[in-house]
Amino acid sequence: MKNTVAEIAGKTRSREVECANGQGIVHSRMALIDRYRAVRQFSEKICETLEPEDFVIQTMPEMSPTKWHLAHVSWFFETFVLKVHLPDYESLHPQYTFLFNSYYNAAGKMHARPQRGLISRPTVRNTYEYRKYVDTMVLKLLGEASERKLEVLAPLIVLGLNHEQQHQELMLTDIKHVFWMNPLRPVFRKEKPNAASSSAKLKWQNFDGGIYSIGHEGAGFHFDNEGPRHETLLQPFALASRLVTNREYLEFMEDNGYTRPEFWLSLGFNMVKEKYWDSPFYWERDLGKWGMMTLDGMRAVDLDEPVCHVSYFEADAYARWAGARLPTEAEWEVASEEVPVEGNFAESGFYHPAPARESGRTEGLQQMFGDLWQWTQSSYSPYPGYKPVRGALGEYNGKFMCNQYVLRGASCATAKSHARRTYRNFFPPDARWQFMGIRLAKEIS
Amino acid sequence: MKNTVAEIAGKTRSREVECANGQGIVHSRMALIDRYRAVRQFSEKICETLEPEDFVIQTMPEMSPTKWHLAHVSWFFETFVLKVHLPDYESLHPQYTFLFNSYYNAAGKMHARPQRGLISRPTVRNTYEYRKYVDTMVLKLLGEASERKLEVLAPLIVLGLNHEQQHQELMLTDIKHVFWMNPLRPVFRKEKPNAASSSAKLKWQNFDGGIYSIGHEGAGFHFDNEGPRHETLLQPFALASRLVTNREYLEFMEDNGYTRPEFWLSLGFNMVKEKYWDSPFYWERDLGKWGMMTLDGMRAVDLDEPVCHVSYFEADAYARWAGARLPTEAEWEVASEEVPVEGNFAESGFYHPAPARESGRTEGLQQMFGDLWQWTQSSYSPYPGYKPVRGALGEYNGKFMCNQYVLRGASCATAKSHARRTYRNFFPPDARWQFMGIRLAKEIS
Amino acid sequence: MKNTVAEIAGKTRSREVECANGQGIVHSRMALIDRYRAVRQFSEKICETLEPEDFVIQTMPEMSPTKWHLAHVSWFFETFVLKVHLPDYESLHPQYTFLFNSYYNAAGKMHARPQRGLISRPTVRNTYEYRKYVDTMVLKLLGEASERKLEVLAPLIVLGLNHEQQHQELMLTDIKHVFWMNPLRPVFRKEKPNAASSSAKLKWQNFDGGIYSIGHEGAGFHFDNEGPRHETLLQPFALASRLVTNREYLEFMEDNGYTRPEFWLSLGFNMVKEKYWDSPFYWERDLGKWGMMTLDGMRAVDLDEPVCHVSYFEADAYARWAGARLPTEAEWEVASEEVPVEGNFAESGFYHPAPARESGRTEGLQQMFGDLWQWTQSSYSPYPGYKPVRGALGEYNGKFMCNQYVLRGASCATAKSHARRTYRNFFPPDARWQFMGIRLAKEIS
Amino acid sequence: MKNTVAEIAGKTRSREVECANGQGIVHSRMALIDRYRAVRQFSEKICETLEPEDFVIQTMPEMSPTKWHLAHVSWFFETFVLKVHLPDYESLHPQYTFLFNSYYNAAGKMHARPQRGLISRPTVRNTYEYRKYVDTMVLKLLGEASERKLEVLAPLIVLGLNHEQQHQELMLTDIKHVFWMNPLRPVFRKEKPNAASSSAKLKWQNFDGGIYSIGHEGAGFHFDNEGPRHETLLQPFALASRLVTNREYLEFMEDNGYTRPEFWLSLGFNMVKEKYWDSPFYWERDLGKWGMMTLDGMRAVDLDEPVCHVSYFEADAYARWAGARLPTEAEWEVASEEVPVEGNFAESGFYHPAPARESGRTEGLQQMFGDLWQWTQSSYSPYPGYKPVRGALGEYNGKFMCNQYVLRGASCATAKSHARRTYRNFFPPDARWQFMGIRLAKEIS
Repeated sequence: MKNTVAEIAGKTRSREVECANGQGIVHSRMALIDRYRAVRQFSEKICETLEPEDFVIQTMPEMSPTKWHLAHVSWFFETFVLKVHLPDYESLHPQYTFLFNSYYNAAGKMHARPQRGLISRPTVRNTYEYRKYVDTMVLKLLGEASERKLEVLAPLIVLGLNHEQQHQELMLTDIKHVFWMNPLRPVFRKEKPNAASSSAKLKWQNFDGGIYSIGHEGAGFHFDNEGPRHETLLQPFALASRLVTNREYLEFMEDNGYTRPEFWLSLGFNMVKEKYWDSPFYWERDLGKWGMMTLDGMRAVDLDEPVCHVSYFEADAYARWAGARLPTEAEWEVASEEVPVEGNFAESGFYHPAPARESGRTEGLQQMFGDLWQWTQSSYSPYPGYKPVRGALGEYNGKFMCNQYVLRGASCATAKSHARRTYRNFFPPDARWQFMGIRLAKEIS
Repeated sequence: MKNTVAEIAGKTRSREVECANGQGIVHSRMALIDRYRAVRQFSEKICETLEPEDFVIQTMPEMSPTKWHLAHVSWFFETFVLKVHLPDYESLHPQYTFLFNSYYNAAGKMHARPQRGLISRPTVRNTYEYRKYVDTMVLKLLGEASERKLEVLAPLIVLGLNHEQQHQELMLTDIKHVFWMNPLRPVFRKEKPNAASSSAKLKWQNFDGGIYSIGHEGAGFHFDNEGPRHETLLQPFALASRLVTNREYLEFMEDNGYTRPEFWLSLGFNMVKEKYWDSPFYWERDLGKWGMMTLDGMRAVDLDEPVCHVSYFEADAYARWAGARLPTEAEWEVASEEVPVEGNFAESGFYHPAPARESGRTEGLQQMFGDLWQWTQSSYSPYPGYKPVRGALGEYNGKFMCNQYVLRGASCATAKSHARRTYRNFFPPDARWQFMGIRLAKEIS
Repeated sequence: MKNTVAEIAGKTRSREVECANGQGIVHSRMALIDRYRAVRQFSEKICETLEPEDFVIQTMPEMSPTKWHLAHVSWFFETFVLKVHLPDYESLHPQYTFLFNSYYNAAGKMHARPQRGLISRPTVRNTYEYRKYVDTMVLKLLGEASERKLEVLAPLIVLGLNHEQQHQELMLTDIKHVFWMNPLRPVFRKEKPNAASSSAKLKWQNFDGGIYSIGHEGAGFHFDNEGPRHETLLQPFALASRLVTNREYLEFMEDNGYTRPEFWLSLGFNMVKEKYWDSPFYWERDLGKWGMMTLDGMRAVDLDEPVCHVSYFEADAYARWAGARLPTEAEWEVASEEVPVEGNFAESGFYHPAPARESGRTEGLQQMFGDLWQWTQSSYSPYPGYKPVRGALGEYNGKFMCNQYVLRGASCATAKSHARRTYRNFFPPDARWQFMGIRLAKEIS
Repeated sequence: MKNTVAEIAGKTRSREVECANGQGIVHSRMALIDRYRAVRQFSEKICETLEPEDFVIQTMPEMSPTKWHLAHVSWFFETFVLKVHLPDYESLHPQYTFLFNSYYNAAGKMHARPQRGLISRPTVRNTYEYRKYVDTMVLKLLGEASERKLEVLAPLIVLGLNHEQQHQELMLTDIKHVFWMNPLRPVFRKEKPNAASSSAKLKWQNFDGGIYSIGHEGAGFHFDNEGPRHETLLQPFALASRLVTNREYLEFMEDNGYTRPEFWLSLGFNMVKEKYWDSPFYWERDLGKWGMMTLDGMRAVDLDEPVCHVSYFEADAYARWAGARLPTEAEWEVASEEVPVEGNFAESGFYHPAPARESGRTEGLQQMFGDLWQWTQSSYSPYPGYKPVRGALGEYNGKFMCNQYVLRGASCATAKSHARRTYRNFFPPDARWQFMGIRLAKEIS
């Protein structure tokens, strides 16, 4: 999800500019401008409690400083909207093109990723000035564009906003890592603790085998990797009604799960030994009790919450220990069809997964959206007939389809308007710092 | 292919012990003994031209010294046959269990893989003594076993022989690397050069979409990762009639293929830059002409031969440059159904891929077996319903199903009796030292 | 010089507390308090032009964030003065002990050095609060101490102030590295350019052989590694009257100095090849012209200035190329005896070496103090009879006496009151980021 | 000692060719030929018990395969004698020049040192053929040379033989490492165990301060780093009468010597933690008892033997723990003046240090030569006025004078005719695989 690209319709010619918020369509110039303002403001709202020093740090190569995120998403609008569509546009600083390109080879040279934490300038203040400058220009462009021009601009703007929403999630997961690496363990935001005191019982929901269609369809926004929609053949399968809890995961740990090679992929077991993994990431044992780092600071592990910050390796090993397996992404998508896109999203400001509540219903899947991204067993690969778009934006997704695994759903750090049934998130199998959890699947004979 | 495990039938109860040579069945005790002798002797025949010093060297962590291969395949029989089924069996040396275990955690501790080239003892002579000792014991066991016992032993023996055939291929590819790393560029075996002077024209063969069954079926030997047989849904596709040639690959190189990021997976392009790749492995430019290392020593690149020693990254980039793609493993298997398992195998002693000859036929796939393993775009993952066998042999295949890609067919270093339509070879996407090539596929609209 | 410890007299019993500024003595409580205030304020003055973000960055393991320096020097007073001598002293934050210990094993566990740039909290503001807190407590202690107590405290305070002066120099050299690593190349402080337009002619000054005494003597402050004073035997030698200039060093470069192994120590030549060194550190070629990074930003190389930011390896290779050698530290100290401790020091705020002006005199050594530290050929080792002090402060110097080389003099970033003839600075032979230059020596037959 | 260069007299014009065996002089052509034969044969005698596989292995970058040593010392004669002085000399193989150059940049490109274990060809047999070829040519040259020519050749031959003797010692220490790295722990040569059952009491011998001359003088052979002879000033000091024993070193270990930072140089303590050092190299604890690897295989630690295979860091830490220090190299040389060059050398074939026997004498230093090289506190640096010879041979010694420490004496693996009072052996402070021990020194007040 560090990467993604919109299939920029480009062909849309209706007066109603279509763009993506998962469900709706932006009906007008004003709606587009409103949405632009809302998403951009949310990025800054996330940073409200940070000190200037917090914005600068890069605590591992995979993450980026908050300052960099804020600048990079603005660079995206500058590069793909302003430089192309605003005549005589001049950048605020010629070097920003170099500093804030993430990985678009076609957009020129770029600053080495692991060195993002080595530059103190531009400062936080400069970065906000840069955002403001880009906002002014974009809003001017949107305000003055002809209707015809607006049809061209809208998909790019919507792509840029979805791109920014991806980085909003990364800003939250990355700052969590920054605070974790600090022995003082600072608190990002003091929130009310989770009130729920129990988690729902795990049930299995069955699905028939057969030919299903998966992948995005229709006019709404989606990234290019979600298409083309195509048929796939599934065997009958069952899916767990909720995510695996900390209580259940602790049983695996106490059954010596981390030291028994029979549960593990070979690469995974090497990782366990090399990195001394013996619990989910952000867990820490203190006087015999497990605590965990949250964006509210350190606190005791709540046994009813879904287990979080586990790698693909751990998810896979847990599933094998539990006599189950991870779902494929096709199974997950098919199963999600009747489930509304609702849940514990970033808008709540809770930023932490919540226990599954016991619902009166005997049927139905819980926690499919929000709470945690869910590892599937599917290697991230192109759908049949997939073609990336031409040019630099074609680098958004396709080139990352190797040695990564697909996650489905959305997390407590994802904006609700960013979540979709067909969304394909992806990370390498050893990644743990995202809000990642486990949903089990199994065969039905 | 460094790994694999047989689905050990165990349940076979017919008098005719079923085992695997791709086509046939071993009908009797004598046939089993003959096959044992033949496979074991072929390993030693491969080493005929080596000096004792050649057996010792480990030139990269991924490969193993010849001496180690010869001992490890014997250790396999010792561990899974003799120690279990021969009462009072005593090992020739108690430390061999430690030294020659490759990766079976359940079989005890093991010598670190990258250190296999650091032990001069046991010597080559000791190693041959070890082989002889194991052979004597196995043959004694097979000669004296009751028919009932033989039914239990046969699948294990057949598995051990298939395992040894895998290592025969590795012995050839590994010694090629040893000789390449030596500035003297020694010659492994002086063979007649390839007589063919032209390669067949590339044609496209079409296949219908629909539901197909893939995976192994029936009594013959197969590794556990080849099953269960199951249905899969394919879109219509076309497959190239032969492998990509050096001539074609040079066009890609001369079109600056290695420096244009638009053709590459992101990890692949990083690798190109990090390792300074600018041609297939074993190629070397001398006075403006491309030469290549073969088991016959250095010689000029033959433009009609299939391009060899390319990684998944290079195969994928070439395909994208050529406006095509790599086949999925299901497509490959379906397409192979009408093609006989014949070709340029290890038995010929040629040990190098040969050009596709122009056949009179207007239809038909060439070079599907023998010559080169063919990269597919399929990540190596379990078939629906796959379950590894219990115990140490369960570590043969399943635990490697992560961050590797499937190759299909067989190579000029594979024994013919080891090749199968359903065979799933696999390597990480940056591996190049095996006999690996490219067959193109494309969509049909 | 990242390390050092004072031989804390402890025995001083005179009413006039002796302490070190190279020349003078602190005559009274008020003088001690004044000196404390002056040195502490100078640290903060250095940081005047920095933004909060600049204080946080660690751009290589050998350097530290400005924030860390400011806190660590305060920790020193807290640990060795307040915790020991102020009854019921409470630290501002219990974790600071852990975070700001540099390398004193005897003072407890410490935060890993290469991770100093990974902590955003305490913020810059917090750090200044910490400084203020420590200052208040130290000044209270000094103000209220009995005369007898003051005799104990004074040497510790003086040691702490010398320690802080060492870190003042590091703050300047470290922030230079921070700004260098930033492609924007920020300017630390805009100063008047150097007015001098020519450099003095290099002359050789001869010294007789014989037995000399070197090492510190008398009551003034000095670090423990400067003693005991002892006799040493010198052969006749000559010393260059000034430092090697950029003009002279460029001749070496243009004579292919960096690619001719005959001039280099073996480790040095390996370093040249491994790191692609082809000029002093902070030099950069742009359109065929050499520029250099200074604390005033990038500017053209001034040929008359002394060459700066060269490693021991480069100094030694240059000397060999020039048919000379580096001086021993004993030769340097003996030669310095008639030279006043005057020059281009940190107090001037110029922070850059200046050309040697042509003086009317035919004799005399220039640039012995200020401008640049001067590499000697002497490995950093204990003087005969050297004994570190007991306890944590004994870790200041002695334990670093291995694989480092001695530099003599002082630099444009050294406080004048910190410079001494007997001062032994030291760095590993590949260090380049300090203000380091070359003075030649040779034998006289 | 991996490096060294002879001061090739070149000027010697007497009929009696002077060359070096520490004491004697080669009086004639026949004596030179005899000496050549004897030294060359001893190299091969050392390898008598090895299998071909043993010659190939490189178990760490610092050591070399036996095969390489045997070839390299022949390359030395070929490069500096045959190619220069034998008209129309043709090398046996043109690539050997590349493969067997160790580090002489002026003699052309060379094979990377850490890859010496990656080449199986030339084989051991080829290597012996190469030696024989070189021997034939050298002996032919020596037999036929005019007396005048012989005067030129003799110093080169003597240098080559001393060079070969250095490599003889390395062959022994390197093969010890090869066998250690093998879990089978092979035995190099079965010798009688050491009969001595007790070690002499440690006494201190005092030496006066004053001006002494050190360095080589006179006609005998010596390496260039042993000169020029020069005066040095010493303070009064005492030297221990014998080496530190295993019994004494164990006391240090049992007093938690390896975990108490106060005894260690900073780099040394880092090494202890990084490499988990807790005993001398080649020691191994088994069931609570310390065993050690010797060239006779594993056996119990003999408490009376001198402690061996300790680094400079350990020697220095032990000395500090014992309230003493290491001697300087000047002190050692001065103290050695009255001690005959006798002891436990390689010629005995014992290849292991022996306990100091209790002698009737109340005075006198034991174990100064043979048994173990003795770490001094002296960094390896040039003597005043030192100049390397011109050309490739100038790379023998001088360029290694950085970050290494001097060892004095000689070891049980040194040929007696190779030992000298003025000999300066040197290794980096973390090296342990040589026969290295500890002799204490201290100040006398």
